[in-house]
Amino acid sequence: MKKIVIIGGCAAGPKAAAKAKRENPENIVELYTMENMVSYSACGLPYFIEGVVPNINNLMIRSPEEFRKSGVEVFLNHTCTNICPENKTVTFNCTKEVNYDELILCLGSRPYNPPIKNFILDGVYNLKVIQDGINIKSRAQTSKSVLLIGGGYIALELMEAFVVNNLKITVVEKSSTILPLFDEDISNEIRKRIEENSKGLIEFIFNDEVVEFLGETSFEGAITKNGRKIDADFCVVAVGVRPNTQLAKDAGIELGITGAIKTDNKMRTSIQHIYAAGDCTEDIFIPTKQSVYLALGTIANKQGRVAAINASGIPNGKTEQFDGVLGSMVTKYFDFTVSATGLSERAALSLQNYINITPVSVVVDEYDKAGYMPSIGILKVKLVADKRTGEILGAQVIGTGDADKRIGVVASALRANLNINEFLHLDLPYAPPFSSTIDPLLTAAYKLKQKIDS
Amino acid sequence: MKKIVIIGGCAAGPKAAAKAKRENPENIVELYTMENMVSYSACGLPYFIEGVVPNINNLMIRSPEEFRKSGVEVFLNHTCTNICPENKTVTFNCTKEVNYDELILCLGSRPYNPPIKNFILDGVYNLKVIQDGINIKSRAQTSKSVLLIGGGYIALELMEAFVVNNLKITVVEKSSTILPLFDEDISNEIRKRIEENSKGLIEFIFNDEVVEFLGETSFEGAITKNGRKIDADFCVVAVGVRPNTQLAKDAGIELGITGAIKTDNKMRTSIQHIYAAGDCTEDIFIPTKQSVYLALGTIANKQGRVAAINASGIPNGKTEQFDGVLGSMVTKYFDFTVSATGLSERAALSLQNYINITPVSVVVDEYDKAGYMPSIGILKVKLVADKRTGEILGAQVIGTGDADKRIGVVASALRANLNINEFLHLDLPYAPPFSSTIDPLLTAAYKLKQKIDS
Repeated sequence: MKKIVIIGGCAAGPKAAAKAKRENPENIVELYTMENMVSYSACGLPYFIEGVVPNINNLMIRSPEEFRKSGVEVFLNHTCTNICPENKTVTFNCTKEVNYDELILCLGSRPYNPPIKNFILDGVYNLKVIQDGINIKSRAQTSKSVLLIGGGYIALELMEAFVVNNLKITVVEKSSTILPLFDEDISNEIRKRIEENSKGLIEFIFNDEVVEFLGETSFEGAITKNGRKIDADFCVVAVGVRPNTQLAKDAGIELGITGAIKTDNKMRTSIQHIYAAGDCTEDIFIPTKQSVYLALGTIANKQGRVAAINASGIPNGKTEQFDGVLGSMVTKYFDFTVSATGLSERAALSLQNYINITPVSVVVDEYDKAGYMPSIGILKVKLVADKRTGEILGAQVIGTGDADKRIGVVASALRANLNINEFLHLDLPYAPPFSSTIDPLLTAAYKLKQKIDS
Repeated sequence: MKKIVIIGGCAAGPKAAAKAKRENPENIVELYTMENMVSYSACGLPYFIEGVVPNINNLMIRSPEEFRKSGVEVFLNHTCTNICPENKTVTFNCTKEVNYDELILCLGSRPYNPPIKNFILDGVYNLKVIQDGINIKSRAQTSKSVLLIGGGYIALELMEAFVVNNLKITVVEKSSTILPLFDEDISNEIRKRIEENSKGLIEFIFNDEVVEFLGETSFEGAITKNGRKIDADFCVVAVGVRPNTQLAKDAGIELGITGAIKTDNKMRTSIQHIYAAGDCTEDIFIPTKQSVYLALGTIANKQGRVAAINASGIPNGKTEQFDGVLGSMVTKYFDFTVSATGLSERAALSLQNYINITPVSVVVDEYDKAGYMPSIGILKVKLVADKRTGEILGAQVIGTGDADKRIGVVASALRANLNINEFLHLDLPYAPPFSSTIDPLLTAAYKLKQKIDS
């Protein structure tokens, strides 16, 4: 029997708490969060704002009462203010000291806000916690226009929500295109699709940055580096997140090269009896074995589970491992799906000087079903491999079809280090309503092999 | 420059012809078929009968003219009557002799018809070639009832087509359930779903066989082994196919243990300069390395391609390999998808005495999207592994969601011999409209690991 203390109440924390109790029901499991709720789907917030998810309560996964019933004690409004590994204690709200046998840190992440003059104004939002979703939705319903800073995939989900709500949207993105995780040829296609399906509501401003907000106490507009003045009723800043690590750092826990908490594959930090999981940790990127920082709900859930199993101490001495990530992602703009895994060509090229790879890629446009079926869509598949070894490095698939279906297949192949010859003839399920006889992914693989062999 | 002769005009043959010409445009490529058309999608026939594909011409993939334009000579109505490897010649229609440098046999398969008394009647159909589809459709439009012999997945596709056409359908299946390639717990679910969504039009008769047809010249009904009399306006027999091998056998080409033509992984038969591809060949089943006979369009296309590349002779001496199959399949009954790959639990258990495996399996029912999204469906996932090694052996996924999406992932994992620990934390793409945070497939993997470790 162990006392396991878990700090963090969104994804990794609740997962770890539930698992730690299930692994050994005799464990005392305590879950602390600084928020006034626990266990919710932050990923669902754009769909709440859009109106697809009608009620904010739908996003609540498990209530404190449900946790308590399963034997996990939940403490809301508890901000951790200190960790003392020597005494194996943590302090909440500067006053309440709690001891632990094993501690799991799920400290999460916070929105990154770029240095913008006059930033602190009413009407400037991030989208991170439930209350942010409620605030943005209520603001969207009484507004006519919005400034969206950032063109990543949370921004993309917000675009759809705002278009549905008939808001005029100005998107300012520092780089030359949206979704910078994709290669530019692919993200330009996505942008084109968005522009064609936005009822003229979206204006993109690329290669520029907001440097100043206008207004005394409330947001009234913005000025960009290039001198553009942007009028909008409110603003959402969505340019990524940073890991919450101060608490861990103060306790002497080692941070990694990315600035997030470093763990081993058992989710152990550098200090004994302290584990970490979720958005506060860095990950190993499987295709390159390098450290990477990715804040994603799936990763948080998996890491929370692994940390809990190992912290619980499995009777037979077995342990659970988390071996790394691929950066797999999917999102959509109305019926248009965008999905990716592993390295983009750009990312692979930028790594050429550090690791021994020679990136090569192909792009194909193929039907997502047998050509004679009704409502066929076109998928654009980009596949990246290493010309020297033939090893698959990554894929990007976009289109009206099941784009993400192909990305799952590539994710599985990347995990197994399949090379192009093994990948080429994958026996993927086929019937006319589901794919072309040779799946678009394999057509891409054929062309890529030709390039590799040439 | 080589003269490459290809026999067979449906899937593998046309694919091989196109590829042989593309590989080396100087090759003389001749494609012979006994039919009066070439290159069509037999897989699309059920959708033509249903009416989803409005015109039979939609199923024509490439016309003889298109082949000729690309430099491939097409010969229709040419039945191969003899192969003479010594002289490197083939004879068509008993009279026309043609020489070859390389020969690719894509002899296809023929419907298997069980021994039924009084079989040869008007109104008894197989579904194999284009004309069959035309005949069945036209018959369905003027009929009120049909007897369907066989409950496999072509039969399933026909059931949907007949329900749409408001026919009363009697299905007679020898075994105890439909889709015998699935485990019984899964196929019973599929049957339940069909029964609930068939407007009362389908009656299943299991554990019985049709032994006699009634009628003088036209089909008027049938009698089963158990003595049931079945009334129906016409009958479709869909109990599988057998490879066409007589021609190859007569030429001295080795057949495999399954009775189909044996090839190596370069699609070479036992006789030099003769390749084979598609439904006339047997395959290596990757999970067991045993020979297996599978007649599927995807496999035919891939093998046709590999045979063509190797027959063409690649300048730099490289060759192309086809390493085997997994039996991946997908089909649907209206919006209900059924999909599988690798070994079912039953198949694995039946192999226990031949290969060293200890099958273990789990079944989970999980949402296909985040639980709060609209129009969520439930997926049933069955995952089979080897308890000794943890190696994944197969999966079956059914449901209203993207069942086949998960099967592609498992197919990729099977190709790479991933074990449960590697499979467990696959980084699959996630967003609320596309899956639950932990994909149903991974939830199944978690539970399977517990069973393996216990």
